[in-house]
Amino acid sequence: MWHLYICSGDPIFLEQFWMQNEAYSSVLIPGWHRMSYRYVDYTLMSTELEYYIRKLHSIVGNAVTEGRYMVFGVGSSQLLTAALYALSSENSSSPSNVLATIPYYPMYKSQTVLFNSENFDFRGDTNSWQSNTSTNNLDVIEFVTSPNNPDGELKKPIIGGKTIYDHAYFWPHFTPIPGPSDRDLMIFTLSKLTGHAGVRFGWAIIKDKDVYEKFLNYIMVADLGISKDTQLRVLKLLKVAIKDDGKPLFQLAYNLMRERWDRLTSVLSKSTRFSVQQRHPLHCNFFNETRLPSPAYAWIKCEKEEDDDCGAMLEEGKIISRSGSFFSAKDRYSRLSLIKSQDDFELLIQRFTELVSLENDSIETM
Amino acid sequence: MWHLYICSGDPIFLEQFWMQNEAYSSVLIPGWHRMSYRYVDYTLMSTELEYYIRKLHSIVGNAVTEGRYMVFGVGSSQLLTAALYALSSENSSSPSNVLATIPYYPMYKSQTVLFNSENFDFRGDTNSWQSNTSTNNLDVIEFVTSPNNPDGELKKPIIGGKTIYDHAYFWPHFTPIPGPSDRDLMIFTLSKLTGHAGVRFGWAIIKDKDVYEKFLNYIMVADLGISKDTQLRVLKLLKVAIKDDGKPLFQLAYNLMRERWDRLTSVLSKSTRFSVQQRHPLHCNFFNETRLPSPAYAWIKCEKEEDDDCGAMLEEGKIISRSGSFFSAKDRYSRLSLIKSQDDFELLIQRFTELVSLENDSIETM
Repeated sequence: MWHLYICSGDPIFLEQFWMQNEAYSSVLIPGWHRMSYRYVDYTLMSTELEYYIRKLHSIVGNAVTEGRYMVFGVGSSQLLTAALYALSSENSSSPSNVLATIPYYPMYKSQTVLFNSENFDFRGDTNSWQSNTSTNNLDVIEFVTSPNNPDGELKKPIIGGKTIYDHAYFWPHFTPIPGPSDRDLMIFTLSKLTGHAGVRFGWAIIKDKDVYEKFLNYIMVADLGISKDTQLRVLKLLKVAIKDDGKPLFQLAYNLMRERWDRLTSVLSKSTRFSVQQRHPLHCNFFNETRLPSPAYAWIKCEKEEDDDCGAMLEEGKIISRSGSFFSAKDRYSRLSLIKSQDDFELLIQRFTELVSLENDSIETM
Repeated sequence: MWHLYICSGDPIFLEQFWMQNEAYSSVLIPGWHRMSYRYVDYTLMSTELEYYIRKLHSIVGNAVTEGRYMVFGVGSSQLLTAALYALSSENSSSPSNVLATIPYYPMYKSQTVLFNSENFDFRGDTNSWQSNTSTNNLDVIEFVTSPNNPDGELKKPIIGGKTIYDHAYFWPHFTPIPGPSDRDLMIFTLSKLTGHAGVRFGWAIIKDKDVYEKFLNYIMVADLGISKDTQLRVLKLLKVAIKDDGKPLFQLAYNLMRERWDRLTSVLSKSTRFSVQQRHPLHCNFFNETRLPSPAYAWIKCEKEEDDDCGAMLEEGKIISRSGSFFSAKDRYSRLSLIKSQDDFELLIQRFTELVSLENDSIETM
């Protein structure tokens, strides 16, 4: 029996939707199309695409975009760093302190380390920072991931300095949308919205004009703008996404995620060894009803004291997950991706069922 | 009479070729295509595209690719910075010194300044560095741009430390190809090869395995790889580019550039006020004959002592060029782009002819 890699966040779960909508979602790009660095209005970003992104947010009700600026980037990945450059004070004698709350997405750290900039330093967890620091007057930039990757929680800032809201998962298929996010700097990505990770497209919504201009300058100097083919494709995909006020896409995506959670929690209900994060119902303005969240990831905890490497426990059942330490948490936790293909999910349930039945067998034979 | 902006390096000159080849060069991308971050072989880069790039270099004879590694990036822009990260020593207590030779492409400096990394510092011109530095044992990374932007010269390293060869313009339409470049780190871009600047695609050819791995890690952490749509489109374009051993594309592109140079030098031959860089014939292995270079840019010099702002002189004729200081050179020089559309070029010749005739009128009236 081979290993099932359910560790990465590759969002293949919506492939089925795009196959059903092939007739509307394909793009044809002629060889002579968009050869220039810039559009005719001399911008690097398609104003039509920007219009559709604003329309999408207004339909979903997950972000305030009126009177805000927008910048496109190579996935949300590039925008995370661009945001650090835009928010850190270049004239300061000491670098800005970059923080996140454990468990956090490891790219915040690995990017900050890679760039090794004099403008900012990664300082790790907000909670240990708070307890070690007497003054709150220091220059802090905090990543707030809401819903959080890996545990799906709707996070709030801990420190209260400058914040970067990573809203990659703030869509109705993963979480009830209690209302539009109204933050100074919000980052979204196509990957977890439509499932097109390979397209590499994200956008930032920015309140402050100076921050916007530094942001734009970063994208300009780093890459001379982002691919026009990508922008054309994203435009086509978003036109499909907002059809019938987004109902077909989000209803299908939500049903799929809810079914996966129902099946996973049903298996886990028979286990005393493994547990999963608590989910709390919230009113979703988009679906206009109270619902449980159905996060992209299951954050599994191994409950027995001796099982302090939960990833290794899952690997016994040939399930390769992403260990807690990857997110600067304890290895008693491990992340399972629920946004992979249906085949991968079926296999996950099958193997988890076997793992749990072994657990019950061993109880019976005790 | 409005101003003619002939300052940017936007390469629209080959639009005509791609319109003629529309039937072969269009791509259709279905909505469900390449949703994953990775290809089935788990790489971020299309191996088929890599195969075609190697094939292209072997046809053109401009770069050794056997036994070398390849990394794709968001234009050559992103690869310039990736190269600095890959070559600078992260464990060193002092940053690597980044140098280029005046006149140089300003992105080398603006990127280094933007990233403000502890790994490297931009130190400006190789020649002033040489005269100010007693020891050559310092950690130096030198950008060697060949042919050079702005002046089209085939440059060689001045310092002789670690080098990044920027070969954006090393194609048979801009310069005779004396033989394959065989350097440790070479960067190419689609922009000046096929004219698709908006696609944002470049590649690096790398000799050393460690450098390659650091390079790949940079692209992975900064952006989680590059757009799959872009890779698909580039594949289609390169298949057209190498048709009939590249003869249709490079013959058309060369004829176009040679005609532009012939017409420009014909106008300039009547001027004592403006001159342009010397061009020296070389044997081109690709076309198998000795030819003059036909660079992407004309590097105009104002010859009169009082005309120390050549960009301002050109602006009198409603021609907006890019001033020498943009390239850290004197403003006695200014760069004109010869790779813009045919309409722009026709207008350039018309306005230059008027400027030169004014010059001759004023001589006659003296």
